[in-house]
Amino acid sequence: MTSAGTHATQDGGGGARTLTAAAVASAVWGRVIGDADAVVAAVAPLDRAGPRDLSFLASARYASLLANARAGVVLVAPDLAETEGAQVKARVVVEKPHEALLTLIPRLYQPPTRAPGIDPTARLGRGVTLGDGVTVGAHAVIEDAAAIGDGSWIESHVVVGSGVTIGRDCRLHPHVALYPGARLGDRVQIHSGARIASDGFGYVFREGAHQKIPHVGRTIIESDVEIGANTTIDRGSIDDTVIGAGTKIDNLVHIGHNVRIGKLCLIMAQVGIAGSTHVGDGVILAGQVGLSGHIEIGKGARLAAQAGVFGDVPAGETWSGYPARPHRESLRSHAALFKLAGMIRGLEKLLARSEG
Amino acid sequence: MTSAGTHATQDGGGGARTLTAAAVASAVWGRVIGDADAVVAAVAPLDRAGPRDLSFLASARYASLLANARAGVVLVAPDLAETEGAQVKARVVVEKPHEALLTLIPRLYQPPTRAPGIDPTARLGRGVTLGDGVTVGAHAVIEDAAAIGDGSWIESHVVVGSGVTIGRDCRLHPHVALYPGARLGDRVQIHSGARIASDGFGYVFREGAHQKIPHVGRTIIESDVEIGANTTIDRGSIDDTVIGAGTKIDNLVHIGHNVRIGKLCLIMAQVGIAGSTHVGDGVILAGQVGLSGHIEIGKGARLAAQAGVFGDVPAGETWSGYPARPHRESLRSHAALFKLAGMIRGLEKLLARSEG
Amino acid sequence: MTSAGTHATQDGGGGARTLTAAAVASAVWGRVIGDADAVVAAVAPLDRAGPRDLSFLASARYASLLANARAGVVLVAPDLAETEGAQVKARVVVEKPHEALLTLIPRLYQPPTRAPGIDPTARLGRGVTLGDGVTVGAHAVIEDAAAIGDGSWIESHVVVGSGVTIGRDCRLHPHVALYPGARLGDRVQIHSGARIASDGFGYVFREGAHQKIPHVGRTIIESDVEIGANTTIDRGSIDDTVIGAGTKIDNLVHIGHNVRIGKLCLIMAQVGIAGSTHVGDGVILAGQVGLSGHIEIGKGARLAAQAGVFGDVPAGETWSGYPARPHRESLRSHAALFKLAGMIRGLEKLLARSEG
Repeated sequence: MTSAGTHATQDGGGGARTLTAAAVASAVWGRVIGDADAVVAAVAPLDRAGPRDLSFLASARYASLLANARAGVVLVAPDLAETEGAQVKARVVVEKPHEALLTLIPRLYQPPTRAPGIDPTARLGRGVTLGDGVTVGAHAVIEDAAAIGDGSWIESHVVVGSGVTIGRDCRLHPHVALYPGARLGDRVQIHSGARIASDGFGYVFREGAHQKIPHVGRTIIESDVEIGANTTIDRGSIDDTVIGAGTKIDNLVHIGHNVRIGKLCLIMAQVGIAGSTHVGDGVILAGQVGLSGHIEIGKGARLAAQAGVFGDVPAGETWSGYPARPHRESLRSHAALFKLAGMIRGLEKLLARSEG
Repeated sequence: MTSAGTHATQDGGGGARTLTAAAVASAVWGRVIGDADAVVAAVAPLDRAGPRDLSFLASARYASLLANARAGVVLVAPDLAETEGAQVKARVVVEKPHEALLTLIPRLYQPPTRAPGIDPTARLGRGVTLGDGVTVGAHAVIEDAAAIGDGSWIESHVVVGSGVTIGRDCRLHPHVALYPGARLGDRVQIHSGARIASDGFGYVFREGAHQKIPHVGRTIIESDVEIGANTTIDRGSIDDTVIGAGTKIDNLVHIGHNVRIGKLCLIMAQVGIAGSTHVGDGVILAGQVGLSGHIEIGKGARLAAQAGVFGDVPAGETWSGYPARPHRESLRSHAALFKLAGMIRGLEKLLARSEG
Repeated sequence: MTSAGTHATQDGGGGARTLTAAAVASAVWGRVIGDADAVVAAVAPLDRAGPRDLSFLASARYASLLANARAGVVLVAPDLAETEGAQVKARVVVEKPHEALLTLIPRLYQPPTRAPGIDPTARLGRGVTLGDGVTVGAHAVIEDAAAIGDGSWIESHVVVGSGVTIGRDCRLHPHVALYPGARLGDRVQIHSGARIASDGFGYVFREGAHQKIPHVGRTIIESDVEIGANTTIDRGSIDDTVIGAGTKIDNLVHIGHNVRIGKLCLIMAQVGIAGSTHVGDGVILAGQVGLSGHIEIGKGARLAAQAGVFGDVPAGETWSGYPARPHRESLRSHAALFKLAGMIRGLEKLLARSEG
């Protein structure tokens, strides 16, 4: 096949490029201890890093691993700089080893290469407009009147519905489906199997049947949003469903019709958000949280994993549990409950006595 | 591409057709106040409706929006008919604005047009039978001996397994997979990425391994069922999995092997139903509800969001919580629990005194 | 189409082969009562089995069904051998009717037939290596440098990322996507729509944005693993995500980056496992369980449905509830809670009196 749709060098093997300990240090404003010429070509955790691997030690909790580590270069936090570890060729002392890795990985792993162009097996509808440097992969289907911005990458088996607009430098992984009504900003990344702008769940019971409410609203995905694998985001019924700029959504999340999510939110795996609920900027929803419909989650609020939320949550607060309450209250209730189990018999006696 | 598989006019933009305020009123048995000749071409919410948009005001809660609304025509409930709103050209007074919209949307938004026919990139197996007016989209795969009824629409990238039968006027959105064993009635609609008749989760531990129980049952989807995006419905092991006529299922729902769902149920997003459980007619399961295996949910029962159900639920009752109980009991327990947190120290003292 | 990708005889209808009651008995070391020449061609449950169907009666709970059963042959447990059931031609007495079925189904239902070979519509990248007897279905995409072992079956619409390795006798159902970084052992079966080695959910907030942590780890699926429909398993960030040999995973499960699952685990539908959590061998996670990140679940532990687990769970223990506790404790707490609801007023009075 053409290289359209390929992710040739993303396979975790690295080795495409190399760095010396000295180069690592200068890239992250660090200080070398040991062999400044030690060469690394990939990143690996301390316990399985080899002589050509870059690794890191960020917390004292894992310091013992360094003793037997055989990594070429290890990024270490200042307070751990002297940790024992004889087989390591070089260590680079840096304030935040984790963040340093972010800077270094792109220098060791080149980005997935792909040739711009339309794979011959792709199907383009009437009146489709493509920007410069767009890649369309094998068997992709772009329906009538869709528009794709400069540099965007539509991978194999993606289906883009008619009239959909996609901004610049977006990436749609294999098997993504965008129903008509989807509107994507720039640099949006959508993972395999996500469904955007599918019909919402809305019916009116009439004449002995659940009659479908036609969905004619849109799904607006603002710039710099990332959406996880197999996540579903419904289109609005009449109003729009909106995901704010810079928000990141994990796998298997459900977002119902007319929901509005603010900017820079983090929404973790298997969260469910029912129709017409509004989520403010910077909100964090942990895994499996459920939000009922037509409620407001204030700016910067946080919901703990599995929280079941049936009412509004004030800005900045952390809530948890079912039904969700301020986290402190939930903790106190759970503590009280587990004490109660041991007291209940005694309390029953007390009551009996006082009432008898 | 051919127009097979396209949803050309579903993109929420409307504009394909127009209605005057007078035409709107006569269509919904309403009464015009204002300019009977005002023309609308699309539907929009009050806060962003323009002069050529139809909007609605159904509840006093949103009455304030009318003051600044610039819609062409607004459907209003009788008690809100006189609400202030000078920039609106016309209002149509009608008993149920929401239901009136259902009648009007199809008149403004023509249904997605598609040409019957088989896209040249589709693959048909041996002995496939297709009814009149069937559409098969790009890259679809119809395996041996499958049968598709008159007027059904198989969109791009759908895979229909061998021997599968599909009734009349069904619609399968992109990337749907029907394993062998699937049997669909008429007017069934299945959204993108749903998996029907996949193997159930059944193993016997023998000779040090989980040995797979072969699944040879069917998945029967009766007429007028709608199934959401990325939902999975397993085939029966020996018996069948059955979804009753007119039942509607939301996104990311899991339905295990041998489950039987009655008619006209509503099953909301991320519900999970374990194997061999039976759900009666007209049951409502709210988001993220979990039903354990081999239980009975009686006709017309309702389960609140996130309920964890481990036993039978009587017909007509509303249950909630974990473990699920009648809703009243659950509410009383939660209220008692949150009171308890403030009482627990005092109660401990009382007990100590009474016992010491 | 070619038969690549077809499951011609899996459709639950059976009839491809037949067995006499005598043959059934000898296959499962059972004893015939009645007509040893009775012929069966398929398997069906007692309530709808016909004269050419094999059925079974394993528990007294269903004994009444035998009275009206019209099955050709029924497998019965010894203690139920004499159960009344005049219309059944023959019964075969066997210790474990359920397990006997496992032996018999493959003799009645021939395995799905498929011709080895590459469908002409499949796309193969550069440097792809295929073993003997590999089948690649319609529209499948195998990217550069991927390797597929002998006898493996890649069904239609599967996307195999560049550099992915797949062992012998694996089966990937339609619409599976393997991102680069996926490594499959032998006899791995992955159901429709599962996403393997997608990017994990990892960001660092820097310069006013959630900056993506590049994921360069692998997803290692060991031999004899089965993965359900629409399940997502993320690749490791730097370390690997690992699924141990013989583990079975149901539909719509989420497994985060760097998670390690042991051997022979059972993970049921809609379970979510957050990043870097380790699950020991033989663990059972029931439906909708949530495990938070960076925790340890000991060997052979069991988590009840919907459990929310925020800390380590010792080997061999059964835990339940939210927050998860040893099952006994959870039961006692719930019992106490439901008693409390009836006592709370009385207790308030007691406290008032004692304090006033």
